[in-house]
Amino acid sequence: VPDTPKVLILMGSVSDVDLMRTCWQQLAELGIASEVRVASAHRTPDLVRELVTSAPGRGLRVIIAGAGWAAHLAGAVAAHTTLPVIAVPLATSSLQGIDALLSSVQMPAGVPVATVSINGARNAAILAAQILALSDEALSARLSQLRESQAEKVSNLKVDST
Amino acid sequence: VPDTPKVLILMGSVSDVDLMRTCWQQLAELGIASEVRVASAHRTPDLVRELVTSAPGRGLRVIIAGAGWAAHLAGAVAAHTTLPVIAVPLATSSLQGIDALLSSVQMPAGVPVATVSINGARNAAILAAQILALSDEALSARLSQLRESQAEKVSNLKVDST
Amino acid sequence: VPDTPKVLILMGSVSDVDLMRTCWQQLAELGIASEVRVASAHRTPDLVRELVTSAPGRGLRVIIAGAGWAAHLAGAVAAHTTLPVIAVPLATSSLQGIDALLSSVQMPAGVPVATVSINGARNAAILAAQILALSDEALSARLSQLRESQAEKVSNLKVDST
Amino acid sequence: VPDTPKVLILMGSVSDVDLMRTCWQQLAELGIASEVRVASAHRTPDLVRELVTSAPGRGLRVIIAGAGWAAHLAGAVAAHTTLPVIAVPLATSSLQGIDALLSSVQMPAGVPVATVSINGARNAAILAAQILALSDEALSARLSQLRESQAEKVSNLKVDST
Amino acid sequence: VPDTPKVLILMGSVSDVDLMRTCWQQLAELGIASEVRVASAHRTPDLVRELVTSAPGRGLRVIIAGAGWAAHLAGAVAAHTTLPVIAVPLATSSLQGIDALLSSVQMPAGVPVATVSINGARNAAILAAQILALSDEALSARLSQLRESQAEKVSNLKVDST
Amino acid sequence: VPDTPKVLILMGSVSDVDLMRTCWQQLAELGIASEVRVASAHRTPDLVRELVTSAPGRGLRVIIAGAGWAAHLAGAVAAHTTLPVIAVPLATSSLQGIDALLSSVQMPAGVPVATVSINGARNAAILAAQILALSDEALSARLSQLRESQAEKVSNLKVDST
Amino acid sequence: VPDTPKVLILMGSVSDVDLMRTCWQQLAELGIASEVRVASAHRTPDLVRELVTSAPGRGLRVIIAGAGWAAHLAGAVAAHTTLPVIAVPLATSSLQGIDALLSSVQMPAGVPVATVSINGARNAAILAAQILALSDEALSARLSQLRESQAEKVSNLKVDST
Amino acid sequence: VPDTPKVLILMGSVSDVDLMRTCWQQLAELGIASEVRVASAHRTPDLVRELVTSAPGRGLRVIIAGAGWAAHLAGAVAAHTTLPVIAVPLATSSLQGIDALLSSVQMPAGVPVATVSINGARNAAILAAQILALSDEALSARLSQLRESQAEKVSNLKVDST
Repeated sequence: VPDTPKVLILMGSVSDVDLMRTCWQQLAELGIASEVRVASAHRTPDLVRELVTSAPGRGLRVIIAGAGWAAHLAGAVAAHTTLPVIAVPLATSSLQGIDALLSSVQMPAGVPVATVSINGARNAAILAAQILALSDEALSARLSQLRESQAEKVSNLKVDST
Repeated sequence: VPDTPKVLILMGSVSDVDLMRTCWQQLAELGIASEVRVASAHRTPDLVRELVTSAPGRGLRVIIAGAGWAAHLAGAVAAHTTLPVIAVPLATSSLQGIDALLSSVQMPAGVPVATVSINGARNAAILAAQILALSDEALSARLSQLRESQAEKVSNLKVDST
Repeated sequence: VPDTPKVLILMGSVSDVDLMRTCWQQLAELGIASEVRVASAHRTPDLVRELVTSAPGRGLRVIIAGAGWAAHLAGAVAAHTTLPVIAVPLATSSLQGIDALLSSVQMPAGVPVATVSINGARNAAILAAQILALSDEALSARLSQLRESQAEKVSNLKVDST
Repeated sequence: VPDTPKVLILMGSVSDVDLMRTCWQQLAELGIASEVRVASAHRTPDLVRELVTSAPGRGLRVIIAGAGWAAHLAGAVAAHTTLPVIAVPLATSSLQGIDALLSSVQMPAGVPVATVSINGARNAAILAAQILALSDEALSARLSQLRESQAEKVSNLKVDST
Repeated sequence: VPDTPKVLILMGSVSDVDLMRTCWQQLAELGIASEVRVASAHRTPDLVRELVTSAPGRGLRVIIAGAGWAAHLAGAVAAHTTLPVIAVPLATSSLQGIDALLSSVQMPAGVPVATVSINGARNAAILAAQILALSDEALSARLSQLRESQAEKVSNLKVDST
Repeated sequence: VPDTPKVLILMGSVSDVDLMRTCWQQLAELGIASEVRVASAHRTPDLVRELVTSAPGRGLRVIIAGAGWAAHLAGAVAAHTTLPVIAVPLATSSLQGIDALLSSVQMPAGVPVATVSINGARNAAILAAQILALSDEALSARLSQLRESQAEKVSNLKVDST
Repeated sequence: VPDTPKVLILMGSVSDVDLMRTCWQQLAELGIASEVRVASAHRTPDLVRELVTSAPGRGLRVIIAGAGWAAHLAGAVAAHTTLPVIAVPLATSSLQGIDALLSSVQMPAGVPVATVSINGARNAAILAAQILALSDEALSARLSQLRESQAEKVSNLKVDST
Repeated sequence: VPDTPKVLILMGSVSDVDLMRTCWQQLAELGIASEVRVASAHRTPDLVRELVTSAPGRGLRVIIAGAGWAAHLAGAVAAHTTLPVIAVPLATSSLQGIDALLSSVQMPAGVPVATVSINGARNAAILAAQILALSDEALSARLSQLRESQAEKVSNLKVDST
């Protein structure tokens, strides 16, 4: 079981927890502890700021932000840190995530956000792990194993077309 | 000429000045002074916060925020105030403003932003004036005159179709 | 319980009532009485006109218009008044509200409409309250309390990621 | 040369004249006189209403409305008449006409608008002529000739691909 | 009960019948008989051609075509007639009708199609009736009554907001 | 029953099997055997490469690739062969297939992919058959019969509009 | 120089010639003769029908159709043949080709069209060649050479990043 | 001047060089050497594979891929490595980058790509630097300085609104 959190996972609303759960589950499977918090760029901007500016001191290296609608959370996080920030646009409005995607990915020059697919919480976890693995060979090996197990699942499939 | 600013106009980038100029020009024509600043939700979040939280003390009543791309500025402003906040989405990316529109208008429940049309800087000024006119009868009269002059320009037009 | 209506809420169709109900509920929670009517820009243009032009005389200060499809209601209201007009685009067609959003927000120069998020009836109420609070300190205090209670709900959340 | 106007052509703004000119030109070529006016659903709603409600008395049978942005003009016209109303969505905003198209075509049940292609001013004229031709055999013959001349232009083309 | 059909209603697929049924029902309520057929622009182009070119001889005056996906039916009809053609784009693909809308409305210059809203079968019927009413005063009166009854339904509504 | 596979059908994920099943069923009805495999452009790129480069040797003539999200499968296949490649974009993300459509169809110059409609697995089969029929007269006759039976189903339909 | 045309190239309008020219140029470079015609699905449906139904008799094996706006040409062609039909959606309206793309690719079940990228005239030619190469080994070899020359152009590039 | 490349920058086409140049320029300003290559997922898949699989051996830690249209390059890279992969969608087709954005960001579960804004080559460089800075304190300090200089440029701006 992991102990020291390396990844901070923020969500804009408590209603996002179900869409984001695979994020910390995937991190845990890869042996990475995470700190998970709800913090809104609009309802609790000071909480976001405090969680982000204090993150390096707590040993956190990567921040993942999941939000829907006009998803500003990842951008608001990125404004307060030079740690890598990963955005997960969530399909929670009637527009099915295109609003959250554009709000996350179209960051102006100078303050990047690494955006993954709509509802891509698990991919955000793997991306965070890939970043952390640059200085963690054991993690790098676990990522390679994950890839291989994904490939094996696919390669052994047979479909009967007769 | 107006003296005490009632409206704070923020832009996310100095490159937005040309698209936003009709905003303070229209306010000035309506006799409303404005304070105009460049402040980025992502590059200068603390400046945004300071300008917004100090705004009521300087007598400012309405805040207009113009921004393009993943336009978070109006939302970042709204997070720090209960003054009315007006967003002007700007068509500065290759997506021609649909990114800025969705990033501005799709605010989550609890923190509204009043969004006007893409590149609608002049409409933002008139909307701010309409809000201020609720407690300023002279301004209300000037707004009615503006409407009438708009109507006259249209009504006197003749097109020769022969 | 509130008594004199300050906000006129219009809906384009009786089928919009369920999507708009949080609007007058939120206003009531903030101590603001509202007058709620169904009036269609297309089926009852004269009713819209009469309700809007008579609104100032009844003490109404802000008008909220909720409509779906080619949502013309807010624009039709704005054509007859210089009171602030707030549009709530509703996701009632197969296009999930993008039609109502563009029909509401893309107003031509000279006649602004303050558009909130798709199905954002509650945000429209808060925006109306923010406008009214410019001349009502007690309401301003209630809005600040609403913000704080929103923040508290978020800040106290803990998510177990182990 | 035609004399009594049968078609009323409205435009939302004087800046739309160049995009709409082929409309009255095509009508004239088909021998149909038109009345051409600028009238805005938002800046001059009473002018729109008056022009429309008085149209049958002046012998007008079909109304064409060209407008860009949140193009409400055709809908506002249709609200005041049971004459056939044709909408020409104009590509005058940064969104290239998709806003005007959705604002024109997505009319709610009960009040139809006949929408043609974006910037399709000439097609609106031909559609109006097709409607009028139901009770005008000479016009019907001219429409058939127009079709044949269109077909001939295409059929005689040869492209050298060597 | 109506007897001689004036309106030909075509559908691209038998699966479109449920979405189109309000079309002939509305026509019948207005006293207009219709001929209803399934004919596909792609699977039965010759049937479409024959139904359309023979339509004037059977007394048909207006043609309504309902289709989803790449909805070519209205355009294919318009290619073979100068009668007014009305398109009803149907939301039958995963794209919810935006494909059918663009395929119907964006007709090239010279061959117009009158497009109504997505799934707007009833509006197509009313538009057809408006066209026929230009030479049928009794029908014109029934259309005015329909409008009035629509207005009455809306105007008598009261919503309790307390 | 067919014996030697002429068409290779690839799917990006085992979850795509249900959406793709009509593909091999339609091929079988036309007397064409197919080889059906799950192979992901991202999780098993080497498997894709091997299946594709070895395909001509196994007698395969056409390759169909069905995938959702950022559907790279058809493009990845086309990169390794000059056999005709048909893409079936699948509506498996929240964006309902527009992502898969653009990812499939917008191939750069030099490496074409033949894209059919979203979820159009059956059409992909017919297109593959049309290609194979260029050198197989019996198959060509079966395709003509299929067309005729489609036409007959439509042409015999009667709808009662009274 | 090629002699007997194997590919029929149709364009919906003479204004499409410049966008389509690379199509017959690429075919000629691959040694494939083509017959190039302008024929509109809407202005000359009978010409389309005649060109298509007579195509097999003239030795034509594949048909390419380029069109913009509500691009029905490829679908209208496919309705009259079981030869493979390739669509090139052209970006000639203000919507930049998304209308032509959806009108081309979203064909209903039973009548497929092989759609290539927007303005992808050259890719259509290569796809046609890939189809013809299934029974033409010399052509297959030329296609492989084309691929190799494309690869070589890319592989020899060096970019100086210092 | 930097010496050992840590970042591999790939572009899908030589025509992308101008849009991507700020990427290696920004890296160089931050003291990070890069290897810049043109390699196409479709025209040179084997070159992509070789450059990527050999990258760790050459000391490369992060891979940036810029591509337009159906931008598969970043995904094709990610398929062959567990290094972090950053995608820059380029606005090179008529669809202005929305095709490249969706093709880049909507990666299926298991193989993430970190997507930045359309044409966001400079942001990709900064994101790569942020990742590398996790194990390079001097680089981390330079990133903080870059942020401060960005903030200073904004904060010293004054706009004269009188």
